[in-house]
Amino acid sequence: MSFSVHPVPNLPLIKPGDDLGALLVDAIVQTQLGPQDGDIVVVCQKVVSKAEGRVVNLKTITPSPFARQLAAMTTDKDPRVIEVILGETTRIVKMDRGHLIVETGPGYVCANAGVDESNSLDDDTVILLPKDSDASARALAAAIETRTRREVAVIVTDTFGRPWREGLVDFALGVAGMEPLLDLRGQADLNGRELHHTVNAQADALAAAAGLAMRKGAGIPAAIVRGYKYQRGDGGATKLLRSREFDLFR
Amino acid sequence: MSFSVHPVPNLPLIKPGDDLGALLVDAIVQTQLGPQDGDIVVVCQKVVSKAEGRVVNLKTITPSPFARQLAAMTTDKDPRVIEVILGETTRIVKMDRGHLIVETGPGYVCANAGVDESNSLDDDTVILLPKDSDASARALAAAIETRTRREVAVIVTDTFGRPWREGLVDFALGVAGMEPLLDLRGQADLNGRELHHTVNAQADALAAAAGLAMRKGAGIPAAIVRGYKYQRGDGGATKLLRSREFDLFR
Repeated sequence: MSFSVHPVPNLPLIKPGDDLGALLVDAIVQTQLGPQDGDIVVVCQKVVSKAEGRVVNLKTITPSPFARQLAAMTTDKDPRVIEVILGETTRIVKMDRGHLIVETGPGYVCANAGVDESNSLDDDTVILLPKDSDASARALAAAIETRTRREVAVIVTDTFGRPWREGLVDFALGVAGMEPLLDLRGQADLNGRELHHTVNAQADALAAAAGLAMRKGAGIPAAIVRGYKYQRGDGGATKLLRSREFDLFR
Repeated sequence: MSFSVHPVPNLPLIKPGDDLGALLVDAIVQTQLGPQDGDIVVVCQKVVSKAEGRVVNLKTITPSPFARQLAAMTTDKDPRVIEVILGETTRIVKMDRGHLIVETGPGYVCANAGVDESNSLDDDTVILLPKDSDASARALAAAIETRTRREVAVIVTDTFGRPWREGLVDFALGVAGMEPLLDLRGQADLNGRELHHTVNAQADALAAAAGLAMRKGAGIPAAIVRGYKYQRGDGGATKLLRSREFDLFR
């Protein structure tokens, strides 16, 4: 199937308490994109976190001795930022060469627990991941559907590095209205031989695609994927998380 | 920017020795997609490998004692397939719970060295990764440009699992005609604060996007990404490989 990806510009700078759903609808309507039934609205985590007030003023943070110790080992990290990261961390997966790869409450494995120093409100503020990105996605989908009477899916994304590979790619952090995994197991290949292991992480691929149309530093933190056929579903990006017992790299 | 992704059906079953560039052009023309200048033609590795004759008949393989030993630890692998995998392996990154994550000659880290048992020519055949996927991408780009007088980029993809996350996503294995990384470092964010670490793996994101339009088991092993603005460049998917000294997970 063919599909298209469209940036959603015209979102104002988001502040804590803003009604992101309403602002998103306004921006989508302004670009004359619709929304249409079946659209997938993709929103970068930063604006979701800002709207939800998931920001921390570093002036309120006193770093622990452990946070100071880690900061001394890195070249560029404020010990207060490390304190915030540790507060979001349930387990340290890798701590090496100035990098901190950790597991967060919901089970995401990422650098610095997703705590972000860029695109903050000001220099003393850092942004945390949403507390429950699936709930954030559901709330945005409900807000869009209520206002527009269109049935959409929503993906909340963040930009992560990957082991073994250079460069960042967007991943699905929260998913509502569609299944994040596309299970093709049992479908025969061209020779009738069964396809092995073929479960596609379609929400991650959609996040990556949408990321190509966003410009987070330039005020385009959202995009619409149109025409991609998917089955409606409950969503839940936590389905994309491999459980620890099956994970070779935790 | 908006862009669109289009499947390229109508490719015949590819056999060793086939002129994949010519067949691709035929298929693209048949779908009335063009190609147009600036298109990114994305092709899944399997058809590239088949055309290049990167197939092995398992009847010709005698597994070593080590391959037999590994096969005994897994539930579903033919020792001859493991022998083939080891032949493509320069280093074993992780060997655990029946999985074999290895580094291949060019430096890709993936399961089973990318050796593929599905969509083979017959039950006794497995498909290897192209010997040099960047060269394969360059050859396809040249073939398309020669036949159509259109300037395109080409990405050869494969479908990989990822640490920490469920499901498979397509990655760039070979890139020609565009830079695989989009370097935004030094560009200021909305507050004028510098964006940290922002190098985007655009070829991987394009591969993931194109993967959503392909159906490898159903005879759609290629897609066209249209409208995504990129700088022409030499390509080279090996630029996407993190060198071992900076990699925390090797």
